[in-house]
Amino acid sequence: MKPMGPIPPGYEAEDGMLLIGGCGAAALADEAGDTPLFVYDMALVRARITMLRAAMPDGLHLHYAIKANPFPPLLAAMTELVDGFDIASGGELKHALDAGMKAEAISFAGPGKRDDELRAAIQAGVTINLESEGEAARALRIGEAVGVAPRLAVRVNPDFDLKGSGMKMGGGAKPFGVDADRAAALARRVIAAGADWRGWHIFAGSQALDAVAIIEAQAATVGLAARLSEEVGAVPPLVNLGGGFGVPYFPGDLPLDIRAVGLALEEGLTLVPAALEGAAFALELGRYLVAEAGVYLTRVIDVKESHGERFAVVDGGLHHQLAASGNFGTVVRRNYPVAIANKYGLADGVEEPVSIVGCLCTPLDRLGERVQLPAVEAGDLVAIFCAGAYGATASPAAFLGHAPAREILVSE
Amino acid sequence: MKPMGPIPPGYEAEDGMLLIGGCGAAALADEAGDTPLFVYDMALVRARITMLRAAMPDGLHLHYAIKANPFPPLLAAMTELVDGFDIASGGELKHALDAGMKAEAISFAGPGKRDDELRAAIQAGVTINLESEGEAARALRIGEAVGVAPRLAVRVNPDFDLKGSGMKMGGGAKPFGVDADRAAALARRVIAAGADWRGWHIFAGSQALDAVAIIEAQAATVGLAARLSEEVGAVPPLVNLGGGFGVPYFPGDLPLDIRAVGLALEEGLTLVPAALEGAAFALELGRYLVAEAGVYLTRVIDVKESHGERFAVVDGGLHHQLAASGNFGTVVRRNYPVAIANKYGLADGVEEPVSIVGCLCTPLDRLGERVQLPAVEAGDLVAIFCAGAYGATASPAAFLGHAPAREILVSE
Repeated sequence: MKPMGPIPPGYEAEDGMLLIGGCGAAALADEAGDTPLFVYDMALVRARITMLRAAMPDGLHLHYAIKANPFPPLLAAMTELVDGFDIASGGELKHALDAGMKAEAISFAGPGKRDDELRAAIQAGVTINLESEGEAARALRIGEAVGVAPRLAVRVNPDFDLKGSGMKMGGGAKPFGVDADRAAALARRVIAAGADWRGWHIFAGSQALDAVAIIEAQAATVGLAARLSEEVGAVPPLVNLGGGFGVPYFPGDLPLDIRAVGLALEEGLTLVPAALEGAAFALELGRYLVAEAGVYLTRVIDVKESHGERFAVVDGGLHHQLAASGNFGTVVRRNYPVAIANKYGLADGVEEPVSIVGCLCTPLDRLGERVQLPAVEAGDLVAIFCAGAYGATASPAAFLGHAPAREILVSE
Repeated sequence: MKPMGPIPPGYEAEDGMLLIGGCGAAALADEAGDTPLFVYDMALVRARITMLRAAMPDGLHLHYAIKANPFPPLLAAMTELVDGFDIASGGELKHALDAGMKAEAISFAGPGKRDDELRAAIQAGVTINLESEGEAARALRIGEAVGVAPRLAVRVNPDFDLKGSGMKMGGGAKPFGVDADRAAALARRVIAAGADWRGWHIFAGSQALDAVAIIEAQAATVGLAARLSEEVGAVPPLVNLGGGFGVPYFPGDLPLDIRAVGLALEEGLTLVPAALEGAAFALELGRYLVAEAGVYLTRVIDVKESHGERFAVVDGGLHHQLAASGNFGTVVRRNYPVAIANKYGLADGVEEPVSIVGCLCTPLDRLGERVQLPAVEAGDLVAIFCAGAYGATASPAAFLGHAPAREILVSE
């Protein structure tokens, strides 16, 4: 038996059936027409944002990094809940505008923006987070060509990183942003060229569960923004503090202490250095807002035994949920939280270890390794939790020619 | 500087431009309409198959596992070069039939076949490689319902594995096939039920470069097939020996000694045990046939420096070539062979270390780490070799909202 990650709060059962947004999992699969499917519960997203806003300083902007989950109905609902969207491509620009987010509340980061993407963003009035001096020159040239003063922020590669983060985005040589020692010069240059300078974008890491590490990184970020702004001699309209708030996926993971982060940030922003007086501050979060609000439901096709080990083969797999298979950015495979949705919360169930494997003909396709579950049978619905972020769009959907996963949003 | 894998044979240059199938890389990008794109050279696939057939025993069937690359024009060309297709889903069944492969030369493996997939395959007359007793029961029931005697082979989880293989598919508890000690009983059962028993499918591993390991696994496979056939009391029409032939991706990798494998197999099949007399044998290969015939071409958008390290940011990335980024089934990231396509084979070029990063806003998106290349500039075309297998369809194409890669086939 191997342990699994913690099932996120907010999931109840009725007569042994997992409820998502008050609906039974089996009924949701029927409504979607077939398994496998992702179900996102907007009520959980709303509750998360309410909790977050309550913990954070008044006036702090909250941005949603739509790469985490760009499902159109979810994006549309998000426009009313956050202060801005962060995008990473021309495709995401279209998603964001289609969802109804106003262009001036959208910012565009990404190290390899093409000219056509820059042009579309500048024409729409979206803020470009500049990743290099070369990109700045291209953006200014395109702004001139289309007759628009481009809205430009400078993305800074900070000279520190977010400790304990799942993915380091700053510190040392990085492809993101410009090194801190060149950032102020770049800001001065775009201001001098007549661009609408929007401030700083400083992203030090992601998926951290350690409040102390986040508090330290945020304090260093505010300090760096102050130092750079003083060098520029102008107050930045907005300082994007990045994100990095993680969610518990694996055994032993504990939720981030968001109140501690909020209190420290409140203190930091009350005593803000003169160079930042009047600046607005934003958090940019993706995963933290949506990951735990999503469940991937997949049906058991076959239960089989091999050399004494039991396997439940499901109709889904890594083509929809690559991260849960352990093949995306993780070195050691660990178990996401999983459950049998139609045998959920039953106190008297006999549990036995079973491996949940996907339908793909590759040994990589493993969604749960020797997890302890109620006796599994063909036809059962397996729930993989923490599936609201980096699921459907971050997986190789065309691999082995299976159909894409369905997606539905509940509690709209 | 970090080393890179060996550039496969068959790639020449003209005036510093990489040629693929005799066409310049830049002209191919123009022809496709935009970068990034995959270019597959059918002449290299043909040469590979000719070389393979010459090395292998006469009469050995050669199957193509289309999951490696199901690009329709390539599949259509493949129908004339191989004796059968192996598929892994209902979607691949459609691809195989659309390409013009005859149904009786198609076999369908995969641990989670749905009833609708089994029905489509049985109605078409495709062989099902049975993965479990439960699947056998479903296939027989569906055959009865549609009035067709299903063509059924038994996939065996062998009691040995392919040593040194990138992915072990047999040996110990596995979700694939039925354990060797239950395989004969299952074959007898499907024969008794009136099915058209097609034989055995035994797949011990994949991506092995060690000829001795493959020779041992093939000998063990023939031995196992003989033992099982004797138990059944019938000669199997076909023994699918699996594949497992690897290609060199990484520094230090050496090509598989295919002649040694062929000579050993010839000897093994000459002295075939009585229980297999009259049986046909097949190799099932995917990656080995197509990987080295493909090149992923992506254009440099920006060249930047950070803390003394140079980065070339390209318009492609892990959303098209996940395996080259090291995030699919590999633990330690190593460099695929890469080159600057428009500065190829120049003897007098000054080389300098550069990291090739994709356009995705994630530190995972790295296609070459500190590789030694001619001085890179924006607009250059980067070639990532060994891109003919598990590229476009095995990558998260929708991640971050970028456009899918284009694909073209040359030397049709």
